[in-house]
Amino acid sequence: MAQVQVNLPNGSYTIHIVPDGIEQMGRLTGQLKLGGKALVVSDENVGAAYGEKALTSLAEAGFSAELAVIPPGEDSKSLTAAMKLYTKAITMELDRKSPVIALGGGVVGDLAGFVAATYLRGVPFIQVPTSLLAQVDSSVGGKVAVNHPLGKNLIGAFYQPRLVLADTGALTTLPARELSTGLAEVAKHAIIADPAFLAYLEENHQAIMAKEAGPLIEIIRRSCEIKADVVERDEKETHLRMILNFGHTIGHAVEASAGYGIYTHGEAVAIGMHGAALISLYLGLCGSETVDAVCSTLRRFSLPLTARQSSSDELMAFFGRDKKRVDGAINWVLIKSVGEVTITDQVPEEVIRKALEKIT
Amino acid sequence: MAQVQVNLPNGSYTIHIVPDGIEQMGRLTGQLKLGGKALVVSDENVGAAYGEKALTSLAEAGFSAELAVIPPGEDSKSLTAAMKLYTKAITMELDRKSPVIALGGGVVGDLAGFVAATYLRGVPFIQVPTSLLAQVDSSVGGKVAVNHPLGKNLIGAFYQPRLVLADTGALTTLPARELSTGLAEVAKHAIIADPAFLAYLEENHQAIMAKEAGPLIEIIRRSCEIKADVVERDEKETHLRMILNFGHTIGHAVEASAGYGIYTHGEAVAIGMHGAALISLYLGLCGSETVDAVCSTLRRFSLPLTARQSSSDELMAFFGRDKKRVDGAINWVLIKSVGEVTITDQVPEEVIRKALEKIT
Repeated sequence: MAQVQVNLPNGSYTIHIVPDGIEQMGRLTGQLKLGGKALVVSDENVGAAYGEKALTSLAEAGFSAELAVIPPGEDSKSLTAAMKLYTKAITMELDRKSPVIALGGGVVGDLAGFVAATYLRGVPFIQVPTSLLAQVDSSVGGKVAVNHPLGKNLIGAFYQPRLVLADTGALTTLPARELSTGLAEVAKHAIIADPAFLAYLEENHQAIMAKEAGPLIEIIRRSCEIKADVVERDEKETHLRMILNFGHTIGHAVEASAGYGIYTHGEAVAIGMHGAALISLYLGLCGSETVDAVCSTLRRFSLPLTARQSSSDELMAFFGRDKKRVDGAINWVLIKSVGEVTITDQVPEEVIRKALEKIT
Repeated sequence: MAQVQVNLPNGSYTIHIVPDGIEQMGRLTGQLKLGGKALVVSDENVGAAYGEKALTSLAEAGFSAELAVIPPGEDSKSLTAAMKLYTKAITMELDRKSPVIALGGGVVGDLAGFVAATYLRGVPFIQVPTSLLAQVDSSVGGKVAVNHPLGKNLIGAFYQPRLVLADTGALTTLPARELSTGLAEVAKHAIIADPAFLAYLEENHQAIMAKEAGPLIEIIRRSCEIKADVVERDEKETHLRMILNFGHTIGHAVEASAGYGIYTHGEAVAIGMHGAALISLYLGLCGSETVDAVCSTLRRFSLPLTARQSSSDELMAFFGRDKKRVDGAINWVLIKSVGEVTITDQVPEEVIRKALEKIT
């Protein structure tokens, strides 16, 4: 059993990485000494697979818990879906000390987290991520959100969970492509912060892709540790935390230009990391061996390096709308070597264009 | 020119109490070194009176500002109204550093504050309260919210402004009943924290009711100071901050049972403070001179002490639904003497009933 401790000014919490997190949900939630009611939010798929097990675990620990199920998919990250959860919380008389528990992937976590952050001005939030992507990315950092019809994640908050339970048992049924999308974020954490971890990923890629328990727990643990270290130093994303956006500027453009649903988030970020590495190379920030190291691991994880469906012109057009802008400038996260990144808004347009042509 | 400094872990800010706050809006906002765009939110009445003046002041300070106007009244505190403001912010490309400015009373402040707290996970929030109630109550403490069809303020956040400008010039056109509703909260602050301030209110009630500038600035300043002192010691309303709810448990029941709009918030709180003082008396916590002191000042401010439209049975029925509950118990804020309050969930039902019978 692995643990990562996250220490933030607004509260500290533990991430437990265990093969039976859902069974332990009641016991570990009980240790937080919260109110006696709990609202578990899940989607139809995860709810059908694990909902009963979750409610049983909570009931055994003395909680009066109910399950609310949303349709799977990005469309559920809406104020409309949030409104249904508020109504559920009110009718079950959930009070300020009783937790909202997210049982599922990123969509469930973002939506349930937004509801936890805003119901009664904030109630305890517990994350039980069941996809690798959610376990290594959205369950650390406190970013919760719903979408606006004009853009993703435009309505949200920074709101930290009281407890995270990453259940590696839930990954055994995860489709291969969903495993890869999570591995893109794992690789990102290695690339921006830890050459030894990137070497570990290279060496153990077969065991990881085969979902062996030991390596899975290790990569989730190290990934969460790296992300927690960055978030601890910059909770509200004023500057340093931007390094977690490595690959995401181009990645978001790839997702949006191809149409959401064509590429997974991790696939788009993999293409974006390739693009950001190329920009770094063209600017003389890094050598080609760094680009090669980035690309090698992404290939090991069956991730794409190019966006065949998009043109460089299409991608260029999206940069004006990226919400990471502050006063109009785009902050590019670039790489000097594995483990060392830099942030700049000074990238000539022709360099961006040259990289985009290479990856489309 | 009076100022109150509020120091909180999540950020400090200054409340400026001035007779020309709207003229100074651009200059003081400019000093915060934010982004170049600004969204001013107001209601149709305040927007018509002061909207142009606000935009001019911001333009002179170099801001590209736009005005969004909502219908006046509680119905605008909805997710639907928030959605329109998100859309406005997105279409004007408001970024993370550019402020949302609330120009109006409590409804505008609560709605615009909720949007500022959640748009792009939080953008700078500036309050320019134009009613006495908003100046002494909702502009200090960071409580922002919208209503749910099943209850008021059930969806919200704790989100601190970067700057508050209380413009006493805007009070000259405030209707008498709206002045009184603000004075109820002023009296509450004196009653829970400062006997000398209550004596000041008694002595100067004629000048205050006549809206003389000096006494108005003084009572707003001292009120904000008292509330800031409480909030600084308990930002998230875990315990101490509950003392600010003095009179509000019964007050909320009075508002809800008579139907919203019959009593103003301040009128309902005045009746509630009378009730809470009586409960304190019946429990032997305070003497009748304390009840008299509370009632005297409320009468001076033309506030009601009894709810003629409600029955004690009706009021009793509402207590089960008050959201200040934690695990079912109601936390009563009671009074030992002027300036000294206590919190307890141990009040026999017959004592509550006896007090309710006296005030209905």
